[in-house]
Amino acid sequence: MIITLITDFGTSDHFVGAMKGVMLGIAPRVRIVDITHQITPFDLNEAAFVLGEAWRWFPKGTIHVAVIDPGVGSARRPILVEVSGHRFVGPDNGLFSNIYESGPHKVREITNSRLMLDEVSRTFHGRDVFAPAAAHLATGTPAPRFGKRVHDFVRSAALSPVPRERGVWMGRILKVDRFGNLITNFHVDHLPDVRTRPFELRADGLHRIARLALNYAETEIGELFAIVGSSGYLEISANQDSAARQLGCGAGAAIELEIYSG
Amino acid sequence: MIITLITDFGTSDHFVGAMKGVMLGIAPRVRIVDITHQITPFDLNEAAFVLGEAWRWFPKGTIHVAVIDPGVGSARRPILVEVSGHRFVGPDNGLFSNIYESGPHKVREITNSRLMLDEVSRTFHGRDVFAPAAAHLATGTPAPRFGKRVHDFVRSAALSPVPRERGVWMGRILKVDRFGNLITNFHVDHLPDVRTRPFELRADGLHRIARLALNYAETEIGELFAIVGSSGYLEISANQDSAARQLGCGAGAAIELEIYSG
Amino acid sequence: MIITLITDFGTSDHFVGAMKGVMLGIAPRVRIVDITHQITPFDLNEAAFVLGEAWRWFPKGTIHVAVIDPGVGSARRPILVEVSGHRFVGPDNGLFSNIYESGPHKVREITNSRLMLDEVSRTFHGRDVFAPAAAHLATGTPAPRFGKRVHDFVRSAALSPVPRERGVWMGRILKVDRFGNLITNFHVDHLPDVRTRPFELRADGLHRIARLALNYAETEIGELFAIVGSSGYLEISANQDSAARQLGCGAGAAIELEIYSG
Repeated sequence: MIITLITDFGTSDHFVGAMKGVMLGIAPRVRIVDITHQITPFDLNEAAFVLGEAWRWFPKGTIHVAVIDPGVGSARRPILVEVSGHRFVGPDNGLFSNIYESGPHKVREITNSRLMLDEVSRTFHGRDVFAPAAAHLATGTPAPRFGKRVHDFVRSAALSPVPRERGVWMGRILKVDRFGNLITNFHVDHLPDVRTRPFELRADGLHRIARLALNYAETEIGELFAIVGSSGYLEISANQDSAARQLGCGAGAAIELEIYSG
Repeated sequence: MIITLITDFGTSDHFVGAMKGVMLGIAPRVRIVDITHQITPFDLNEAAFVLGEAWRWFPKGTIHVAVIDPGVGSARRPILVEVSGHRFVGPDNGLFSNIYESGPHKVREITNSRLMLDEVSRTFHGRDVFAPAAAHLATGTPAPRFGKRVHDFVRSAALSPVPRERGVWMGRILKVDRFGNLITNFHVDHLPDVRTRPFELRADGLHRIARLALNYAETEIGELFAIVGSSGYLEISANQDSAARQLGCGAGAAIELEIYSG
Repeated sequence: MIITLITDFGTSDHFVGAMKGVMLGIAPRVRIVDITHQITPFDLNEAAFVLGEAWRWFPKGTIHVAVIDPGVGSARRPILVEVSGHRFVGPDNGLFSNIYESGPHKVREITNSRLMLDEVSRTFHGRDVFAPAAAHLATGTPAPRFGKRVHDFVRSAALSPVPRERGVWMGRILKVDRFGNLITNFHVDHLPDVRTRPFELRADGLHRIARLALNYAETEIGELFAIVGSSGYLEISANQDSAARQLGCGAGAAIELEIYSG
């Protein structure tokens, strides 16, 4: 059984280690895989994007733990989500918005304190609530034992582009990746015309990106271009250079897409 | 069998990979868990704190390897420590000071060269001495085979606050965590009055922190407050902000605690 | 079976997680070990060095996946290399130059699309080609099934020093490690005289390093000196300080070695 982890805890503290210790104490044979612990602190949109890109590549049965939790200690609920044969554990704060869109889903509030650590601190539910929940799932504890189904879980619509006028959408940068590529929230499944018609991406007042490349190799070194990323989102890239640096913009920045019809 | 790793090697070099290769060559079935490799180079206090927070969450039998080793190549001894059903392997330089306080302990100098790599370099005992020692422990080699017990191992008292006058203690920042929280060396088990009496934390001449919050959610965004961290140490936090940035201080900084009696 | 990973993907994106998900879907029992994902983007020399230092510490049978791939999407070939009982999977761009020198080797182009993901994207061969290839190798698929042998694979000579005049070699900094040590491409196996004769390393116009230390402990704190690193390359170090900062130079910088004969 595999448990994946995605958090904003970084890797320089004891937080992730403590979570893994708890999980291995309950489920000694579980496989733990780090997706990332480098989510920008408290950035739910970035976390939702990264989780959305990673989970589907794991085999069915995988348990995904996501802890980006600005409201730890407040009334926000810990939840367990079942979708497409995968399970997700984390706070009910919109983190799983992408996941809900991927298929029929059951959401439960985790209330069974026997499946948490004996003492639950007010500041570290990753260790005290979410790690033990994932580990108990891995050992075969059935989902209904964790708590009752809820239907008023949090969805966030922040990830979808907004139509503005005919042929124009306002979107945003979801994430800047390691290479300085800007991942937008324009998905080719929702905007198939970008593949066949002329378009323009406007990230600031200066740069207009009209070229859709099929791969990096066909572009000039340093050239700005758009590309459909490995997960279907339109990305702004620069061949062997950082598009983020060239455009001077980062996660959260507004970006406009115009698709020309004529 | 689980082996945890804590080092100041970072994750951009081959160092940690080489250690893992050596361990898996000797003990193919061992589970290796990274606590962190991001300890500030040579910072024994930070490493002792992180190790102290992490180890107890792992199941009994776990072997913890700690390599923060400014004196590699000198006469400092490699040691093997047994405490509370856990084993620790690393240099004898005070790294394990916290561990010794947690219960009765046996400390051995690692001298048996058959349990090291054939060639021991002068600069990389993590790979050549500590990794093989941990792996041989994991395969069942009994502790006495590593070397004789020693009693003059290094303890460092740098982690405890110093009483100054009635009701006043001088402490220090042990660590700044990923979120900018300042973890002090004031532990509520030793200073239980902070839970019930008014107090003041003074980190610099400007800021005085008198509020003890139970969780982040009850505070204002940006507000500075004290909180008992998940491991019992008093922390200075700012809700969704960095206390370290607000106070302009970091690991090692002096901090004063006054508890008012009247 | 062990699969190691070395990439320039960083650890803040979903890239590495997606690769691991793919591998675990194909080979559920495989052990995945991260060497590093922090290679400077597109720096083939750094990656070749780190891989060269790490692989030999793993047991025979290990599969090493290296993805530093500035030409992804171009005509560069995916290859599978067999050397000394180890297997290597990655792009044919010189990454494995060090590996070829370590013994007799067989190189195959990976062409069998049944051993790739059903859809191969143009930008993420790590997930779509190299991860599945490694996982299929781990489950026992024999090397010839991946594709035919090739002999015109890419070797890069950039890693060797160049003789300039009698007793003088021009080299370069391969890598700056976590501690600021400068790892040169001068290897004691090729230049054994550095152990026994006076020499001088010149990294810039100002500093001349003539001391060969046996370990850090014998030097003064802050002193610049040369040392034979744990892997045989001459390193420039400063005791508990960063030689890179003192000399103001980094990866790729030129460095001159003169060995005095008289």
